[in-house]
Amino acid sequence: MNQPLRPVCRAPGEIRVPLGFTFATAIAGIKQSGRPDLALAVAGEGATAAAVFTRNRVAAAPVEVGRAHLKGSKGKIRVVLINSGNANCATGPAGKTACERVCKETACMFQFRDNEVFPSSTGIIGVPLPTEKIIAKLSDLAVNLSSSEASAQAFANAILTTDTRPKTASAQFTVAGKPVTLLGVAKGSGMIHPKMATMLAYIFTDIAAGPRDLQQHLSAATNATFNSISVDGDTSTNDTVLLIASGKSGAKLIPATRSKFTHVLRDICESLSEQIVSDGEGATHIIHLSIEQARTREESLQIARAISHSPLVKTAWAGADPNWGRILAAIGNSGVPVDPVRVQIHIGDQQVCRNGAIHPFDEPRAHRHLSQPDASIRVQLRRGKTNLQFLTTDLTTEYVHINADYST
Amino acid sequence: MNQPLRPVCRAPGEIRVPLGFTFATAIAGIKQSGRPDLALAVAGEGATAAAVFTRNRVAAAPVEVGRAHLKGSKGKIRVVLINSGNANCATGPAGKTACERVCKETACMFQFRDNEVFPSSTGIIGVPLPTEKIIAKLSDLAVNLSSSEASAQAFANAILTTDTRPKTASAQFTVAGKPVTLLGVAKGSGMIHPKMATMLAYIFTDIAAGPRDLQQHLSAATNATFNSISVDGDTSTNDTVLLIASGKSGAKLIPATRSKFTHVLRDICESLSEQIVSDGEGATHIIHLSIEQARTREESLQIARAISHSPLVKTAWAGADPNWGRILAAIGNSGVPVDPVRVQIHIGDQQVCRNGAIHPFDEPRAHRHLSQPDASIRVQLRRGKTNLQFLTTDLTTEYVHINADYST
Repeated sequence: MNQPLRPVCRAPGEIRVPLGFTFATAIAGIKQSGRPDLALAVAGEGATAAAVFTRNRVAAAPVEVGRAHLKGSKGKIRVVLINSGNANCATGPAGKTACERVCKETACMFQFRDNEVFPSSTGIIGVPLPTEKIIAKLSDLAVNLSSSEASAQAFANAILTTDTRPKTASAQFTVAGKPVTLLGVAKGSGMIHPKMATMLAYIFTDIAAGPRDLQQHLSAATNATFNSISVDGDTSTNDTVLLIASGKSGAKLIPATRSKFTHVLRDICESLSEQIVSDGEGATHIIHLSIEQARTREESLQIARAISHSPLVKTAWAGADPNWGRILAAIGNSGVPVDPVRVQIHIGDQQVCRNGAIHPFDEPRAHRHLSQPDASIRVQLRRGKTNLQFLTTDLTTEYVHINADYST
Repeated sequence: MNQPLRPVCRAPGEIRVPLGFTFATAIAGIKQSGRPDLALAVAGEGATAAAVFTRNRVAAAPVEVGRAHLKGSKGKIRVVLINSGNANCATGPAGKTACERVCKETACMFQFRDNEVFPSSTGIIGVPLPTEKIIAKLSDLAVNLSSSEASAQAFANAILTTDTRPKTASAQFTVAGKPVTLLGVAKGSGMIHPKMATMLAYIFTDIAAGPRDLQQHLSAATNATFNSISVDGDTSTNDTVLLIASGKSGAKLIPATRSKFTHVLRDICESLSEQIVSDGEGATHIIHLSIEQARTREESLQIARAISHSPLVKTAWAGADPNWGRILAAIGNSGVPVDPVRVQIHIGDQQVCRNGAIHPFDEPRAHRHLSQPDASIRVQLRRGKTNLQFLTTDLTTEYVHINADYST
């Protein structure tokens, strides 16, 4: 009992859809590419929800509206409506009005309350939201709602921007013979340096749970996963992770099921985080950064972010260059009062820096390790007992190409 | 009286050399390229000096030794010895011993005290300093010392690493008919995000002044110049700015000459800072960033650094993309409690963001402005009365090429 039926699966075509949700997508013409840019998820008979949002002081209109709706509805959400291609950020009071209008029209169509609609936007900052294009597609969306795996996959596709592939993860476990399903869907490729959440992620489940319980679980899971990744050191204005529970499995989140749910939720978030970093803009190498022996989680994060924000470190990784001196310099710049002579650095299975100085190592072997798609770097600080796993990427010419040509 | 004879000049071949200094350079084989990598400056009859150093907690051996020598000699320095091609950083106790040994051998040759030698190193981190190669060239250096302009120019060349051109600035002014000369020499192209100084800069002058006076002047000048630039957001482990005064002009730094000296010293530092940013690794655009209406200098710097450290902002500049939304997002991430709806952003002579939101502007004109080698961006915060001028660069594919292929 309470064993997962199977591990978290990532491959498309293998996802499971929790009971109580339907999905639909549409092409509203927000994206110039003509790809799907509207995604709708509906929990017709209601659901409880909790969310975490960006800590960027410049928060997009949908972040403000989503937060207000969750509060106003006391965590009861029936609709998630996402547009890609436009962030509706830095759009002033008109941006908030636009977002509220889209929510109102959606709620009206389903005869729900306005604050039961949870909105999200992702795309370019500072361009007015094309409200009419979205509203014109609402009835199409409603007609096409489906609980099929294909519709959930289409949902995962419609929320993408610079991503090269959709990001999904699902898992099941049983509670007293009843299967409980979780389905996570995310997008994100650039502007990834989450301090509260990541670009956009939605975790649907059919367990029954109160919003407060969901919030607790979600915050714990995101800290260890979405908050421990970085692509380019830019924290987005639209970061949102939503956990939404239909209760349709018949199983409840009670003390007996809590630890299993915690575990599976974390697996889902971890898988989505990894998929986001793997699809990092221009990334050719994924670096598994282990920061060990820190005093607190906060300082280990600060060091991981300093390393993963250093253009010199990231370009060295692009060249598979075992230049550990740049890593040490980034640690020295992190703001954490590290004593350099206590720092140890390992690349793959080799120690390359001992007590803050050169440690003889096989350089071609370190180069070969860093040439792999996945490489690991371990930093030991000898300050305390806190360890952190952090995921990041290299910085390539392709990243520059992608971002020098985005809006013009 | 006290008028500058002429403005600061940057062009090679136009520098003036202050009285009391001689220069020499050599090829020690530290650089694989075979270019000059040793630079010596000697104030044979003595000089006073002051310096500012990196705030990176990982400080190179020559930074530690230089600081100790300045303290031990009470600000009396006779020799500046610089090697390029090796930073002598993260080299452990052996690195410090190596640096001290080079200083000792140099002092011995000239029959000076060890702590009258001020050492600097720049280049790769974490590789043992090839002490013997340096020591083998000391007598060659001593034989070739000269006070000529050509030797000072050779000095400026020998301290370079990834720089594409030497950086010099000189100026003269008169005190009671006596000409006082300042000559600044700097290097720096990457790892430029100074928090105390920049890579390496040396300002030679023949005014007479005590070390404490020099320190005061230098700290004030570097705050407004070297500490207000960024190329890639990485603070170096070897940052050093030295101000050294031979007194040979016969003019003294006294209340009557103070304001002129302050002014000229700042001009020199400003010119060198600009030259460093202009030669930023892979840079194709120099951005003159003006952060206005901040509460304090510290918070304006924090915002300037957040903007100039954002890969998304910097790659947009590479494409001359007037994507002000990324600038606003970077401001929101700076950690300064900015109220987004008070933020105004201008690109060139056009306002592009008003009260944190879209302000209609001529996009092709903004694109043309950003396509120039020098462009200006102005951010107004409406928080206070402090303004800051900051210089930074774009992030190009060339930067990635330079840094992905550095050591391997």
